[in-house]
Amino acid sequence: MDKQDIKEIVENLNYLIEANDEPMIRNIIIGLHPADLAEILHYLNEDNRHYIFSLLDAETASDVIAEMDDVSRDTILDDLDEYRISEIVDEMDSDDATDLVSELPQDIAQKVLDRIDIEDSREVKELMTHEEDTAGGIMAKEFVSVNKNCTVEQVIRKIRSKAEEVEDIYNIWVVDDQNVLAGTVSLKNLILADPKTRISEIMDTDIVSVKTDMDQEEVANIAKRYDLVSIPVVNDNGVLVGRITFDDIADVMDEEASEDIQRMAGIADEEEYRETSILKISQVRLPWLLVGFVGEMISASVLKHFEASLSKIIAAAFFIPIIMAMGGNAGIQSSTIMVRGMATGEIELFEVRRRLLREFLVSFLNGLICGLLLFSVVAVILQQARFGLLLGGVLFIIIMFATFNGAFIPVILKKLNIDPAIATGPFITTSNDVLGLLIYLGLITVFLPYL
Amino acid sequence: MDKQDIKEIVENLNYLIEANDEPMIRNIIIGLHPADLAEILHYLNEDNRHYIFSLLDAETASDVIAEMDDVSRDTILDDLDEYRISEIVDEMDSDDATDLVSELPQDIAQKVLDRIDIEDSREVKELMTHEEDTAGGIMAKEFVSVNKNCTVEQVIRKIRSKAEEVEDIYNIWVVDDQNVLAGTVSLKNLILADPKTRISEIMDTDIVSVKTDMDQEEVANIAKRYDLVSIPVVNDNGVLVGRITFDDIADVMDEEASEDIQRMAGIADEEEYRETSILKISQVRLPWLLVGFVGEMISASVLKHFEASLSKIIAAAFFIPIIMAMGGNAGIQSSTIMVRGMATGEIELFEVRRRLLREFLVSFLNGLICGLLLFSVVAVILQQARFGLLLGGVLFIIIMFATFNGAFIPVILKKLNIDPAIATGPFITTSNDVLGLLIYLGLITVFLPYL
Repeated sequence: MDKQDIKEIVENLNYLIEANDEPMIRNIIIGLHPADLAEILHYLNEDNRHYIFSLLDAETASDVIAEMDDVSRDTILDDLDEYRISEIVDEMDSDDATDLVSELPQDIAQKVLDRIDIEDSREVKELMTHEEDTAGGIMAKEFVSVNKNCTVEQVIRKIRSKAEEVEDIYNIWVVDDQNVLAGTVSLKNLILADPKTRISEIMDTDIVSVKTDMDQEEVANIAKRYDLVSIPVVNDNGVLVGRITFDDIADVMDEEASEDIQRMAGIADEEEYRETSILKISQVRLPWLLVGFVGEMISASVLKHFEASLSKIIAAAFFIPIIMAMGGNAGIQSSTIMVRGMATGEIELFEVRRRLLREFLVSFLNGLICGLLLFSVVAVILQQARFGLLLGGVLFIIIMFATFNGAFIPVILKKLNIDPAIATGPFITTSNDVLGLLIYLGLITVFLPYL
Repeated sequence: MDKQDIKEIVENLNYLIEANDEPMIRNIIIGLHPADLAEILHYLNEDNRHYIFSLLDAETASDVIAEMDDVSRDTILDDLDEYRISEIVDEMDSDDATDLVSELPQDIAQKVLDRIDIEDSREVKELMTHEEDTAGGIMAKEFVSVNKNCTVEQVIRKIRSKAEEVEDIYNIWVVDDQNVLAGTVSLKNLILADPKTRISEIMDTDIVSVKTDMDQEEVANIAKRYDLVSIPVVNDNGVLVGRITFDDIADVMDEEASEDIQRMAGIADEEEYRETSILKISQVRLPWLLVGFVGEMISASVLKHFEASLSKIIAAAFFIPIIMAMGGNAGIQSSTIMVRGMATGEIELFEVRRRLLREFLVSFLNGLICGLLLFSVVAVILQQARFGLLLGGVLFIIIMFATFNGAFIPVILKKLNIDPAIATGPFITTSNDVLGLLIYLGLITVFLPYL
């Protein structure tokens, strides 16, 4: 369903709600995919959103809630009582249920946990013990595992008994008597096997699993590396405790890429695209503006320090923007390559020396080209060859320095276990500005007698 | 396998190659996953890489080649003759085979296409007719489709016959007599169905498919929206022609996110993380540096134009960096939110007016805070209240302007069907610099008599 369709349905629903035509409304929403319904709800005003949501049966409501962005979800949840929420949570997969319950105010969360199916409640409580951004925090308890002594026939019976609980099954996981993960069988191989075969004879024992406390970004990188449709999660003893599927991995990839991009742009916390609170948006953007503010006050005092040189040769001020901008640009280019490369695992810490050498050579080349260009412009157009030589030289040095700085700071941060994306925005740009101006004006002052 | 393991294996292999211990080398590489082997090859020097690759049987070699980054792959391919390449291509899935063949020099590609299995050759030629970044360009011809009159039993026989060709099967696609896509059945439901049932009775007809010419970013957004493990690709008549699986989608997501991030950072073409050519890296980075260069030469002439004001009040030069940096930062924040939101489909063109209003309000708030701060610093520390008032006011205006500019330009570009990511780096930053300085110095000049 494309955006135009969504827009039309939203308009139709608004019209039908106005006209009080409930049968027609039910008729429209019954055929919609939960993901489309979630988006449609987002575009309705609050009253209409609550009304449409109230028409959904618990199963559809649970699917829709799982597809909603955090902001729309919160406005829906605020309006529901614990009975309706419990009914919805009961229909959810354990990972979605956990996300939802942990968003609720503590007293309501407790009431919901008391009302839902006792087995579900136990699972949600267990999942809530894991950190949100780890394998344990994104895994679900819905998976099919069988003892290695089962026959294919028995496995198929087990799938039948779990068919309703586990909606999508891609692999069967095989465990030993202690529930330790021993192997995997794809559904395809299960179909092709003789019903009397023991599962241990057809299982693939070369299996990739992750531990509950592994960071979700690392989980995503492993899933991508080995093209895994679903990943078994094990505890410290190797016991199978959960499953992460490809759609969770896609969510993690989106989340991590958005987080990196936003951090690089100087947005402190993730800014939800559908966030509606101006104060909240202001709050995540202000920190970098303030870092920039402080840094550029230092730049101002650097300039103040060189006031004498500036008064003598006012033309030096004309080139402050180019010195700052070119240093900034070169620094952002190299830091972005490092930050993104380290995030996707394509640049490894142990090959950093080779990377830095490469950045050094690239910056030498690009610095040389830009420096020569500036020299030519000043020498030819402004007819000031000596000043041009100085400016070109400074630009060359600053591009080299800023490139190297931009590539090096992320590496240092990574070694200190700080997310390098944070550095790219505020620190690299600002430090390049301050140091760039120091180099520029320092050299101007030294060579002033010869200009 | 983690990075430490990879590093150790690389060292061991280097040692064993030196010692000429081929049996031991074969022993090590036989147990490795193709993705790990591909990475190990990347870290070997060229001679050792070719030697290890020559030890691989055609099937393993094809899996390894499919996992390699473009740069390492090219160095391997350069060294192989058409016989070995044909042998490898014969073992590949049609999408990987197409990628590889289209990288080859035309004469070798033709020879390879003549040598491989005729059916494979036909498929590769068909796939090569599609644009690289479309559904047709990333789909594979390996899928299982059955006529809607088949029974479950017949379908399972079909899977058995295709088991070797189609390595991973998640869904069976059901087509009518004209090969038009009619429905889908998951393997789970196939296992649970009675062998005598007709497939059309258990198929899900509510199926999402994509057309061959759909842009790959849009395909990825659809796959994520509906959590699809594999997506059927149809031609203009609805005839099923290919399959895209979740792992292809993950590759597209990574590629598109990296492309966006790099473009935002002012890197013109995608820079491969493993690119080794300094000239190539320089070439993709230079365009933005040059855009910046030209822009900042305009800044310089703006400053030159206001030379008289600057000479009179040299302190005005001290605040050039803060005006430029704060405008730059605010512009990058808002443009990044717009660019990323539009790429993931979370910000729609038809709700742009609401977004722009929000950006306006946020920039008002943050501009006010930063402006007041600058006023306070200059008024209290420098004891120049009137100059402080002017500076604070200018900063306020510039943050508002730059934020709005940063949010607005990506929207315009999107409407013109130009990738908005391109704008974020070069144009927004540079135009903010030039216009910011114009506003700043213009106001300084106007209010000069009152300072």
